[in-house]
Order: sequence, then C-alpha cells, then structure tokens
Amino acid sequence: MKIQVINPNTSQSMTASIGRAARAVARPDTEIIPCCPDAGPESIEGHFDEAIAAVGVLEEVRKGVAAGYDAHIIACFGDPGLLAARELARGPVIGIAEAAFHVASLICTRFAVVTTLTRTRIIAEHLLRNYGMTEHCTSVRCVDVPVLELESMGEQALAERIAEQAMQARDNEGAGAIILGCGGMADLPGLVSELMGLPVVDGVAAAVKLAEALGELGLATSKHGDLAFPLAKSFTGRFAHFGR
Amino acid sequence: MKIQVINPNTSQSMTASIGRAARAVARPDTEIIPCCPDAGPESIEGHFDEAIAAVGVLEEVRKGVAAGYDAHIIACFGDPGLLAARELARGPVIGIAEAAFHVASLICTRFAVVTTLTRTRIIAEHLLRNYGMTEHCTSVRCVDVPVLELESMGEQALAERIAEQAMQARDNEGAGAIILGCGGMADLPGLVSELMGLPVVDGVAAAVKLAEALGELGLATSKHGDLAFPLAKSFTGRFAHFGR
Amino acid sequence: MKIQVINPNTSQSMTASIGRAARAVARPDTEIIPCCPDAGPESIEGHFDEAIAAVGVLEEVRKGVAAGYDAHIIACFGDPGLLAARELARGPVIGIAEAAFHVASLICTRFAVVTTLTRTRIIAEHLLRNYGMTEHCTSVRCVDVPVLELESMGEQALAERIAEQAMQARDNEGAGAIILGCGGMADLPGLVSELMGLPVVDGVAAAVKLAEALGELGLATSKHGDLAFPLAKSFTGRFAHFGR
Amino acid sequence: MKIQVINPNTSQSMTASIGRAARAVARPDTEIIPCCPDAGPESIEGHFDEAIAAVGVLEEVRKGVAAGYDAHIIACFGDPGLLAARELARGPVIGIAEAAFHVASLICTRFAVVTTLTRTRIIAEHLLRNYGMTEHCTSVRCVDVPVLELESMGEQALAERIAEQAMQARDNEGAGAIILGCGGMADLPGLVSELMGLPVVDGVAAAVKLAEALGELGLATSKHGDLAFPLAKSFTGRFAHFGR
Amino acid sequence: MKIQVINPNTSQSMTASIGRAARAVARPDTEIIPCCPDAGPESIEGHFDEAIAAVGVLEEVRKGVAAGYDAHIIACFGDPGLLAARELARGPVIGIAEAAFHVASLICTRFAVVTTLTRTRIIAEHLLRNYGMTEHCTSVRCVDVPVLELESMGEQALAERIAEQAMQARDNEGAGAIILGCGGMADLPGLVSELMGLPVVDGVAAAVKLAEALGELGLATSKHGDLAFPLAKSFTGRFAHFGR
Amino acid sequence: MKIQVINPNTSQSMTASIGRAARAVARPDTEIIPCCPDAGPESIEGHFDEAIAAVGVLEEVRKGVAAGYDAHIIACFGDPGLLAARELARGPVIGIAEAAFHVASLICTRFAVVTTLTRTRIIAEHLLRNYGMTEHCTSVRCVDVPVLELESMGEQALAERIAEQAMQARDNEGAGAIILGCGGMADLPGLVSELMGLPVVDGVAAAVKLAEALGELGLATSKHGDLAFPLAKSFTGRFAHFGR
Repeated sequence: MKIQVINPNTSQSMTASIGRAARAVARPDTEIIPCCPDAGPESIEGHFDEAIAAVGVLEEVRKGVAAGYDAHIIACFGDPGLLAARELARGPVIGIAEAAFHVASLICTRFAVVTTLTRTRIIAEHLLRNYGMTEHCTSVRCVDVPVLELESMGEQALAERIAEQAMQARDNEGAGAIILGCGGMADLPGLVSELMGLPVVDGVAAAVKLAEALGELGLATSKHGDLAFPLAKSFTGRFAHFGR
Repeated sequence: MKIQVINPNTSQSMTASIGRAARAVARPDTEIIPCCPDAGPESIEGHFDEAIAAVGVLEEVRKGVAAGYDAHIIACFGDPGLLAARELARGPVIGIAEAAFHVASLICTRFAVVTTLTRTRIIAEHLLRNYGMTEHCTSVRCVDVPVLELESMGEQALAERIAEQAMQARDNEGAGAIILGCGGMADLPGLVSELMGLPVVDGVAAAVKLAEALGELGLATSKHGDLAFPLAKSFTGRFAHFGR
Repeated sequence: MKIQVINPNTSQSMTASIGRAARAVARPDTEIIPCCPDAGPESIEGHFDEAIAAVGVLEEVRKGVAAGYDAHIIACFGDPGLLAARELARGPVIGIAEAAFHVASLICTRFAVVTTLTRTRIIAEHLLRNYGMTEHCTSVRCVDVPVLELESMGEQALAERIAEQAMQARDNEGAGAIILGCGGMADLPGLVSELMGLPVVDGVAAAVKLAEALGELGLATSKHGDLAFPLAKSFTGRFAHFGR
Repeated sequence: MKIQVINPNTSQSMTASIGRAARAVARPDTEIIPCCPDAGPESIEGHFDEAIAAVGVLEEVRKGVAAGYDAHIIACFGDPGLLAARELARGPVIGIAEAAFHVASLICTRFAVVTTLTRTRIIAEHLLRNYGMTEHCTSVRCVDVPVLELESMGEQALAERIAEQAMQARDNEGAGAIILGCGGMADLPGLVSELMGLPVVDGVAAAVKLAEALGELGLATSKHGDLAFPLAKSFTGRFAHFGR
Repeated sequence: MKIQVINPNTSQSMTASIGRAARAVARPDTEIIPCCPDAGPESIEGHFDEAIAAVGVLEEVRKGVAAGYDAHIIACFGDPGLLAARELARGPVIGIAEAAFHVASLICTRFAVVTTLTRTRIIAEHLLRNYGMTEHCTSVRCVDVPVLELESMGEQALAERIAEQAMQARDNEGAGAIILGCGGMADLPGLVSELMGLPVVDGVAAAVKLAEALGELGLATSKHGDLAFPLAKSFTGRFAHFGR
Repeated sequence: MKIQVINPNTSQSMTASIGRAARAVARPDTEIIPCCPDAGPESIEGHFDEAIAAVGVLEEVRKGVAAGYDAHIIACFGDPGLLAARELARGPVIGIAEAAFHVASLICTRFAVVTTLTRTRIIAEHLLRNYGMTEHCTSVRCVDVPVLELESMGEQALAERIAEQAMQARDNEGAGAIILGCGGMADLPGLVSELMGLPVVDGVAAAVKLAEALGELGLATSKHGDLAFPLAKSFTGRFAHFGR
C-alpha cells in the first residue's frame, strides 16, 4: 500500500519530520511517500495560510492520484482542503485532525488538544464542531510557539511546554488523553506522554493507521454525491490544468 | 464608499449580472466594482471548485485592498475564502450566503434556500451550521440546473423552476421567505416573489446593503485575534507574492 | 424612510439618548421617530419588566403602523415583543439585540456582550440561543450598574467599567468585538472602543442601518405563516382596542 | 393546598373546562381556583395574542399571590409569561406545556404534540427548544381547528381529528405518547387515548400534579438570581399599580 | 399506591436511608417498599459498577411487577437500567436523576448538581445531555467523598461540604437551585438548604412525588414502540429465568 | 496481537459468523478470539436485552484481560457495556457501532444505517448522539427482520432487503455510504455494496482494524479519570467475584 503524506506547508524539514513519524508507525509493506507543495506558505498559522495551502494540497493529491497512490494524508492540523481532496481522489483521504479526534475518542471520554498559537485555536474549534467532536473535547490549549520555531526550540523544551498545558487539562478539566494539534509536533507523543502520564495522540501517526485500515477494509471515498469526481469544466489561468 | 463585488468564478457574464444586481440596490454614492479572478473555475459546483476559487477571491481582495476599496463582497453562495479574506482586509468582507441568512432571519421565523445542484446542497447546509442558522432554515432545495445553464435557460423558466420548490417549502414546511442560493440567480428575486408571494432574498443585494451599513457604522473587520492581518512569512512558487 | 425607534421603557431621557444615537447614524433622508410607551416600567431589568414593556412596545408599533412608518426598532436589549410586533407590522421590525448579534458576527468570529445587571444575563443568553448565536459569543458580562444609574454615573466612568469587562473577554476568551448590551449604552461605542481597541457594536445604531437596508431591498416582514397579521378576534377590557 | 389555575384567554367556557379538568385530578385536599384575566384576547393563536395575554396572566398571578394561593398554573400551551410570573410569585408557577413535556418524557422515549393551528406550531417548537425537549419530540402536529371552535365541534369529532394525527405520529415517527397541545383540549385525553391506544398527556392535569408535588416537597420558585422578586421601580399609566 | 424504591447498590443502611427519605414525602395512602438487589456492588462509583447494578435493578423490577407494585423508582443518581426497566414494567419507572432535573427546572432557570466523586461527574453530564438538560445546568460539582463514607462523615460535615460547592455555583455561575447528586444524600436537602439559602432538590423525594403524580394521572409507561415488553426469547445460564 | 471479539448474545452461530468476518480482515499476525457469554439473551433487540447482555460482555472482558488479550471488541450494534468494559481493560475496547460510525465518516459526508427492527432504531439514534455523529447520519433504517431470522432468511434475500433501504437513503437523503447496523450482518457488506453501488461499512471488520491500529500506535484505554480501573469494593451474590 502506498500512502502519500502531504505536508501542506513548504517546509522541507517539517516534511521530513512528518515522513519520519509516518514511517515509524507504518507497516513493513506500507510505503510512505512524504511530499509538500511547490508553492505556498512555509507555515500555516491562520485562515489565510490555510486557504492558500489547500491549493498546494490539491495539486499534490492530483499528482498522487496520477502516480497511483492508494491513500492520501493531509498533515496539517486544520485539515486544509479535505473535502475538495476527497473529490479528486479515488482512494481514502484522511486529515490529521480528524484522525486524532476519532482515535482519541476511542480511548477516553474527553480529550484535550494542545496546539501552537492562540490565534489558530478557532480553527481547531471549528473542526471539532464540524466533525461532531465538540463535546468530547475539554479545551483547545496553546503553547504560543510559532510553527517554525517548534524545531529550533528543542524537543525537550517543547515537550515540557506541551505537558504543562496537558496537565492543566488533565487536572482541571478531566481530560483523559491529549492530542498534539500540529503536524510539527509529530515526533513528540512519546516524550509528552512520559512527562505527564496520559496517552498522547499524534494525528500523523493516527492518520497512517486509519489509511491502512481503510485500505485493508477495501473502503475508499464514496463517489456518490458531493464527493464524486469534480464536474468537468473550464479552469482559466494558472489553474487551467484543473479543467476539462 | 467603494464596494468590491467579487464573483469567485471566472464567468464574465455572471460577473456582469452580479454587478448589475449590486448596482440596482446600491446607494447613489456607493461605487460598485465588480470583478472576477484571472484564474479559476468558470463555475463553482463542489468542494474542489470552491477551494480553487478561494485563491482567486483572495487575489482579488488583495488587489481591492491595494486599490483602497472600502468593503469586499464574495458573491458565490458557498462564501469561499471568507475568513481568509477577512484576514487580508482592513474593511468589512461579506459573503452572500451569510448576508442572505442574516437578512432573511429578520423577516421570518423560518426560511428556505433554493439552490442549483443537489450535489452542492451540503455546502449550504454546512454554512447554515457554521453561522448558527440551521434551526432557521426549513430545507435547502435544488432545481438541478448547472450554474452555467442558468442563463441559457431563460429568466422566466428558471424563476418558475425556483418558485415550484419555494411553494413546496412554503406549503409543506412553513417557510416564510425564500433565499436564492446562487450568485447566478441575482437577477431573479422580483420574478420569483411574484410567482409565489413570499419575500425573496438575494444574497448579492443583501451583502451590498450590509456592507454599506457597516461602512456607515464605522465598523470593520476586527484586527484582534484570528482575523488580524496574516503573520508575515515566506510563500514559495506562484504564491511568492503573498509572502514577506 | 421613516423609522420608528421604540424605547420599551418609559424613561424620557433614555428615549432621547436612543433617538440621538439613531439619528447619528441614519442617512439624511431617513426620518427617526423616537418614542416610548405611555404605560410601563421606567427601566427593564428582568423577565417581569420585559413582559409588561412588551405591551407598550405593541401599542407603539400599532400607532406607528397607523402613522405609516416604514420600519420599527425595539430598542431594549431583550428585544421584548419582537415576534408579536412583527405580526402587527407591515414593514420590518428589528430588535437591537438581534441587530447587534448579526452585525458583530460579520466582523469577528467571536464577540462578547457587556450588559448591565447580572440578573439579566440570562435574557441575553436566551436570545443568543434563540437566534442561533450562542457559539459566536464568548460570554455575556455585566457591569452591575442598574439601568437608571447608567446616566448619572457619567459617560467616562461607565465606559471604563465596560472596557474593563471587554478587555477580559478580549484577553481571556478571544473576543474580537464587543456588543453593548443595553439601549442605555447607545452613546458609548466610540468611547469604549477607544479605551480597549476592539470594534464596539451598539444595537440601536445597528438596527437603524439594518432597517434602512431592508427598506432599500424592498423587504418587509413575511405575511405568510406565523408572522401574518393577528387573527381577528375579540379582546376585552383595557385591551379591547386590539380586537375585531 | 390552593392552586390558582389561570386560563390566559378570556373565554369563560374554556376557563370552566380547564377548571373541570384540573379538579378531576386534584387531590381531595387541593383547592382549585380557576380564573382568567379581565382584559385580553378571547383565544390565543399567535405571538401577538400571547404577548397581550401574558399581562393578564401576570395580573392574575399578582392577585393570586395577594390571596395567598400556594401555586399558579398557566393554562395555555404557549406558557405565556412563565418566567415573569415566577418573579412575581413566592410559590411554584407551572406552565401546561412544560408540565406536559416533562411528564410525557417519563413514560416514553419520544412523544408527539397535537395542537390547534399550523400557525402556532412554531410556538410549541420554540418551547421544546427552550426546555431542552426537541429531541424527545417526533413532531408538532395540527388539527387546524381554531381555538374557539374546539368546543362547538363536539368532543367526539375533535377527538377523532386529534387521533388521526396521533396515529400518524405513532406509526410513521415512532411516537410513544401524545401531548394535547391546547388548554381547550383538557377534557379529551381519555377519549383520544381510547381511539388510538397511546397514553395521552394533558398539560392542565399534568401541571396540577406537578404543583401538588412541588408543594409537598416544600419547593418553591428560587428567589435567588433572575427569578427573585422584580426590582422595585416606577411603572407609569395603566401599569402604575405594578410599581413601587 | 405501592411504590417500589430500588436502591441499586447492596448497602442495607443506604437502602434504609433512601426508604426513610421516600416515606418522609409520600402521601399517607402511598406505600413505600424499599429494596436492594441480592447481588451487586455495595456502592456505585463508575460505569462498571453501574452496569452490574443495572441487572440487580432489573431483577428487583421484575419482582416488583410480579408483586403488583404500581410504580418503580431507581434510586441511584446514574439512573442505571432505566429504559430496560421501563420495558419490564407496566407502571411508571422513574430515575432519581431525571426526577431531580425535571423538578429543579420548574423552580429556577439554571441549577447545579453536587455529587460525590469527580470520577462520576461524567455520568451526570451524560444524563443531562440525554435528558435535554445540559443548558439548564451550570455545572456538576463534586465533594470527593466516596459513597460509603457519606454516612460515616456525619450529616453536618457532609452538608457543609456540599454547601460549599453549592455556594460557588450560586455566586459564580448563577445557579438558582441545587440538586443532590447521590441517593446517599437523600437525608440532607433541608440541612444544605439552610446552610446556603437556595432550594435543594433530592431526587428520591422528587421521584416519589412524580410517581404519585403519574399514578393519579392514570399514566404509565407507553407499551408502544421501544418500551413495549421485551420480545420473548431464550436466555441462558444464570439469566435463564428472564427467558421465554 | 490478540483481539478478543465478543458477541454479546449467546448465539453460537452468530459468534462463529462474527469471528469469520473478523478473521477475514485481520492481519496475518493478528489472532482473533471470538467468544460469547455463558449467560444472557440469545439475541439483543431492546434496552432490556442490552442491559443483561452487558454483564456477559463484562464477564468476557474480564476473562480476556486475565488471558492477556491485547484488545476487546464488543460485536453488537448497541455497543453494550462499552464504557464499563473500558474500566476493566488495560488495552483498547472498541464497539462495532462506534467503529462503523468513525470509519464511515472518513469516506463520505453523510451515511445511513440499516439495522434490524424498528424497535431498536432508537438505540442507534442514541449512540449517534452520544458519539457526536447525529449530523453525519441521514437516517437509521430498518429491515424489520428479527436478529435470529437473519441467518435463516438467506444471504441473498437479506442483502436485497438491506439494499432496498440503502437505495432510498442514497437517492432521497444523499447518503454516501451505508453502515450495516447489526453484528449478524457482518458477512454481507460485499453483497450489499454490489447491489447498490455505495461503500458498505460493517462494524465488526471496522473494529478489528481500529483495534489493530490502536495497538500499533501503542495507544490503550486511558487509565486517568472515569476509565481508570474500577474502585475496589465488595460485590455480593452472584457478582461477588467482581469484588475486592
């Protein structure tokens, strides 16, 4: 099985780290193909970044479909372009936020999310609502570290910052598990879990396993209704290649 | 006051018709600047079309901000790129779906939406939920005419098709007003209302009046929190101009 | 266009101040007719005050309809008698709470309300739910100043008290705009906004612009269904004039 | 225990019939005091009728409190003036709609409501939402008989009309019990239940038993917070007697 | 009328105390039959305890039906086995949590629950959601006293602990009444109410009065649909007596 | 990895068929251990059957934990005893209803459920609400075949009956995928999907893959909070073995 893992931003080091996290949990016979768009923002920290990044995601999905990949993962916690990507794809498409929410809901009655910037909290809150998960989440918490500084900060320091928020969710709100709310935190679940004792769910790893699961179940995106292939039509300008 | 009215698809005739509908309700001292993206789909009939069109919307908003326009309207019923556009803009940004929902909720307790394709119904339903309007809507109904055939069909025939659905919503579901769920229907509210007696709300016109209202109230997009200007960062490739 | 602005309580000075706020934003060709009931409470600070005040509102709407006014505004933050007034009226009827909610939702993803007494907070919370706006509001906050003391307190002192709550909503809850939750605060949006930097929405001003907008759109209360004119029937006693 | 049963409309025959239904289920040591306002609509069939009737209800509650009655029932299915009446009262105040909803939810997982006019359906739907009962109700159905014709129609004919709707709710929607949605149907639960086999809940009877229950539990309206006695203040005109 | 009051745990002293609380509010002609299962946990403090206790409840209901009891009360705040018990019973079955919620919602707009262990808070929160009462509850608070230590702690000390939480709900959240969230607190409403001034609702007492009310209304569990008697079938092993 | 697949009813043939379905999708290195309780109902068709079956599930989980199994699946569409089982277990516990909901939500925007008896529809509807999936489901549909007749009916005939409902959900409600709502339908997804073209999700297979996924992610039930091991205490009678 070939799973395309798309980092929606253009950071090469984050693409590498996401690929590493994906491979770490993939089965031996699963091939992980990490990639990121040619064009777009180097990090995603708001509605605007996300809207532009969605196009890059769709370009990558399009290439991935042409290359015959079996499944596609969108490895940014806002799941940018998810429904649009499902229209393009024949196989399953999984967002890391939805993957993390579903998996976390299987191991606790309430989870908390720890993400990067306060500014992006509302993106996670909108996703929780869209996916029906609002009641399963005690809070979305922020470490207020910009995405591009996650790496330079050092794993230990970052894990401690995350664990601090996680412990507040655990002790004050009764959270039973923690979701890491950024693709750039994909290396950290073990470290954070060690620091504060709760199970920690990383969406990249969760998405890989869900994609494998769907593949082995023989299930793919429904091509009936609103996720059918896009209606053929003209596109103009730099998007002309999407057209009929 | 200068209001940029952005048709998110690339159809010139629809841009013209939307501009006409906007001017028909604008005040004498309001200048309407209709436009559409250089690049993108010629019609928007699904999640994919919408994701691509959002970039065109953002390009236009960017130009509109540079040109000093006071407000921006996104004239496609899926409100593509709305929150992202608000980050870019200094003035207000209004989507025609949200405009129609808000206005309709002021004149009846429950409205119905009549849109184009069954395939896109879920887009309207998601917006209703996101805006808190689900309970104010009796149903989203479809005439199943592709967007690009709306014009060729003839106004009278199209109005009758819409009125047929509207009457079912009125008689079976108690809808007190009808929302036209497509920018390409902006010329029709009068005709449809005549045919079945309920008030009919077109989002383009509604958005123009809300934009004028916000302007005169001295209110603009909040620049505190998630709608602040996008964080400065690098963008690569064909999106490099969005970067720092 | 003639807009009747009804202060539901019987305070003359508040009626004057509400009229002033309405005129300040009305267009040159809009005539503002401020009024208040002959009979009822001098301030509205609870469910009981509101129920009695609703009758005064309806008497005024009835007079306003007879006088040929084009629209009616209910200028108390509980929107007392709103749906009943819509039955009576031919033109639009707008409550200042709903006006403020709708307008605020166009300029931020989450707003906060600052109102007078803790006791009346639940009235605002019920309205948020009824209008579908609960998720768009971070909190309803109170300055705990009785309505009739708002004036004597002095504008500066009151604005500071409101700004204090607003800043907590901004910094702790991520509110992007503030709604002033009392008709008696209609003079203050500028002052409060200056003190803490967020856009501030006053419902009186918002309602005037929405009423003008509806008027120019040719939209009025739907007379189909539950907002049709009241069924003709006998009324007895002091309400006999409402009867057939 | 003295329970004041307030018919919010001014129909003497309906007041009598409501009193009869209340007495039929009251305990021997419970005194039922049926009454109706001096002034107001002869039937309640819309938001406007309800707003006016609420004042009559409050006048009666005020008298009832002065007379030392132990509890107060508002015997119109819209529960007009309920929260306001609770401010006035020391003892419990029960609306017949809420009473019926609570009682029905104890004997089935989903109930249906059968009321009079389609026009008033939204009033019941709003109450279901306000009381948290929306999910427990399969539908609100209407026989489309005006309130004042309920009596002239004849009990058998009316019961058959109601049973017809009830059977549809039972067979198509899985309703397990039926609520009679009008004070003017208080004589009919036995007849309707016989006709279609489901338990039938009349709100008047239900409210009497809940009032007795609260009385024997020593529970009364909380006087802390928004249901505390109204703040003392001036009322003008014909409402001056409500003032300080 | 004979009301079976089932303590779902096997503690004799708690069964006695629940019986005492039930008798204290029952009418002279109501016979209270307190009982508890032969087999099961001595206290209920989690999902597991509750699932096992449900079987004991069902065994008791079965005996109670055979003995001709008119109604059945499940006297644990998780309402274990409620819908299953309704299938078995001909008369009404009332859980003490639902009884408390319904009764409290009649005397205030928002109540708080004070229960035993933080661990069980989610059980109350799930019930609030299932019964549609989430919005009527400000919070579920815990004294963190194990169920079996409630008695040994002494009534005064326990009441003070509860009152402390209740006062926080009253002052910080606007709760207008307090619900005691454990059958083992059934003796305490008077004491707690005295300590902090709000009405206090005990579910055991509330359930007795609701059972009497339903009895006098001639209402019993609907035997149409999902609460009809269980379909006849084989049961094996120690549950064989439940079978055909 | 050893996965215990618990059929909550006592039917040996259904246990075998569920085991077969589980093995069909399990990985080569996954061992499937199908089992069913010693005691309980031979089929589960209501709240009562489910409450009794939950105890059997818990007995099996207990044995499974003692035997060192790595994960536990509850293979009845009501997920009986799910949260209680999670308290007992160290590894993950998955219900087939939740598994099916989560998986289906990854491949379509709205799914439909086809289950056995109309009587049990509410059980599925309650689960949808509890898991936050109500908005993702167009309807729960029933073939009205008793569980024990599923086998005797013949696979082809049953698949056709299910497909008939599925096609209505697809064509009238826009369902993009179908969930089989009974453990006894675990052999049928291929057949049903062939008959009407939508992806078909069987919960048994879905649960196996989710259990494997959690195992490989190193995630297990959170032992913090309400899913911690049951508090040690005495159990009496036939449940004494559960005690301290």
